[in-house]
Amino acid sequence: MSETTTKYRIAVIPGDGIGKEVTPWAQKALEQAVQGAADFEYENFDLGAERYLRDGAILPDEELERIKTTDAILLGAVGDPRIKAGILERGLLLRLRFELDQYVNLRPSKLYKGVTSPLATPGEIDFVVVREGTEGLYCGAGGAVRRDTPAEVATEVSINTAYGVERVVRYAFDLAMKRRKHVTLVHKKNVLVNAGDMWQRIVDRVGREYPEVSHDYCHIDAATIYMVSDPSRFDVILTDNLFGDILTDEAGAVVGGVGYSASGCINACNEFPSMFEPIHGSAPDIAGKGIANPTAAILSAAMLLRHLGFDEDAARIDAAVEADIAELGSTPRSTDEIGRDILARL
Amino acid sequence: MSETTTKYRIAVIPGDGIGKEVTPWAQKALEQAVQGAADFEYENFDLGAERYLRDGAILPDEELERIKTTDAILLGAVGDPRIKAGILERGLLLRLRFELDQYVNLRPSKLYKGVTSPLATPGEIDFVVVREGTEGLYCGAGGAVRRDTPAEVATEVSINTAYGVERVVRYAFDLAMKRRKHVTLVHKKNVLVNAGDMWQRIVDRVGREYPEVSHDYCHIDAATIYMVSDPSRFDVILTDNLFGDILTDEAGAVVGGVGYSASGCINACNEFPSMFEPIHGSAPDIAGKGIANPTAAILSAAMLLRHLGFDEDAARIDAAVEADIAELGSTPRSTDEIGRDILARL
Ligand SMILES: CC(C)[C@H](C(=O)O)[C@@H](O)C(=O)O
Ligand SMILES: CC(C)[C@H](C(=O)O)[C@@H](O)C(=O)O
Repeated sequence: MSETTTKYRIAVIPGDGIGKEVTPWAQKALEQAVQGAADFEYENFDLGAERYLRDGAILPDEELERIKTTDAILLGAVGDPRIKAGILERGLLLRLRFELDQYVNLRPSKLYKGVTSPLATPGEIDFVVVREGTEGLYCGAGGAVRRDTPAEVATEVSINTAYGVERVVRYAFDLAMKRRKHVTLVHKKNVLVNAGDMWQRIVDRVGREYPEVSHDYCHIDAATIYMVSDPSRFDVILTDNLFGDILTDEAGAVVGGVGYSASGCINACNEFPSMFEPIHGSAPDIAGKGIANPTAAILSAAMLLRHLGFDEDAARIDAAVEADIAELGSTPRSTDEIGRDILARL
Repeated sequence: MSETTTKYRIAVIPGDGIGKEVTPWAQKALEQAVQGAADFEYENFDLGAERYLRDGAILPDEELERIKTTDAILLGAVGDPRIKAGILERGLLLRLRFELDQYVNLRPSKLYKGVTSPLATPGEIDFVVVREGTEGLYCGAGGAVRRDTPAEVATEVSINTAYGVERVVRYAFDLAMKRRKHVTLVHKKNVLVNAGDMWQRIVDRVGREYPEVSHDYCHIDAATIYMVSDPSRFDVILTDNLFGDILTDEAGAVVGGVGYSASGCINACNEFPSMFEPIHGSAPDIAGKGIANPTAAILSAAMLLRHLGFDEDAARIDAAVEADIAELGSTPRSTDEIGRDILARL
């Protein structure tokens, strides 16, 4: 990313379904938040289920190379029930995360005033999940032998490196310093003893460099209990790729639906562009009706701005969203109405 | 198990902490439910954290062999924070599950009248998780190289066989026939494509033999959302070892706490004894105070009876528990008071 000019090239992948409906609002929020202090140039990438169904392309190498030259990526949502599970996930979403070495998958969860949690007494919920993004069971290691016979064996291999774990552990402790200074490692070290033990040792060692930050440990099964019984206990949750996937969806539900949750796939050393997206999917059931909630997409724009260093502008988007939900969160509104209402507060 | 006499040898492993306080109530419930129609002979096994701390033994081979000759196992709870994670889990609990080939880990979840769910509008919750118990990431395959160096690599291998998956899939469909005739496969087949694809193919194939049973599929991350947003949708959840571990703890929380949930580790072909236990742990914080709730242990006695064919007696325990909770669930009572109250209804 350039230091001397305020021009940023943003790759935009609207994707499928409601992804295409909410992404323009993320772009509008970007523009309006910086008020001319930065110049965003967008390059659209036609990637996702529709493209795949049309011409069979998932993520052509040239397009990946072009994406690599941008400063950041805005993603809408990708997916279509007509496509076999795994094709777009592994070929597009995970390929981007891996090729761009987006090792921090950052997922804040906050219960906004005005949103109804499914919990009877949710309390204050405001934590961030720091999910490792480039290792574990997501590596694609594994295979099947004697496929489709009674003797079939299928394996999946979780690969974890000290290199990969340490960098995300450091990110979590740095983040905790800016928050309530508590890190909870979530793993299953009583069963996954090799990987779990390595995670715990690295957390203990790095933790000693952050004497102000306390840290504890929680098995993934117990974490899913706390997520409904006492989510306020969490500040920064640090976990691996698969546990992070599971826990952030549960967290999304607990804060009133994935419609209010954004996420960043971050290459924290800025070697490659980072990617920002709502955590909801393409929602084919409501696509095309103009009723998708653009709030999560707009929040992903705030995460993008924060990543580029526009902390104050990002905070203004967050505040606008917060005020909008507090006042109008329960009013049925169209995509455009919600988008306009939030932008009007910027 | 003998067909000609009504004598059954039960291995009892009270274990640690509250395990030792609640297990006697499970035994009393067994006795009283069958009212002399079966003769239970108990053999106590001193296994768990206390034994390990005393003499270093985890599960001596002779004791395992003796356990193998019994008709069923009642387990309390095992664990102590002084022992490093993994030692008792892998050496005792998982060793029993694997050596006794307890391939069905059966975990019913029911929201009893009188229990307060953390959900604001829980609806009717009554489902069973059929968790595979002898494969997946629990195999203990994996290792670490260059341990404790910056170049460390730690792996965990999920091993899944058609043999192991098919038998638990059949169990789930058989169970669904006795229930609301719906099976939900939970996996992460969009990422764990080898194992997920095998599970789905086997479910599809076996499902064709059960035309009355409908089945659908749900990613583990989405399942954790439904578990808080719409748990009534589930009847029989069929899943692998790790996903089952995670989902059943979340389910336990949603039905008002793991204190009301029992589980069976079942060798459904009766080659080896099956094991029944409350899903709660040894709870060192409340151990010795006489306040642990024996309800889950008593429910595990009902599961044991059902496994031995005493369906009606098992149903009577379930009914007694249900009536007790409905009437007195919110009254603070000691372990012995709850035990006596439930038994008085038998
Ligand atoms: C679509 C899928 C590959 C992805 C994941 O598992 O990471 C999604 O669930 C997410 O959480 O971003
Ligand atoms: C103690 C542990 C090994 C065990 C598991 O992971 O299966 C427990 O969490 C359970 O669910 O019975």
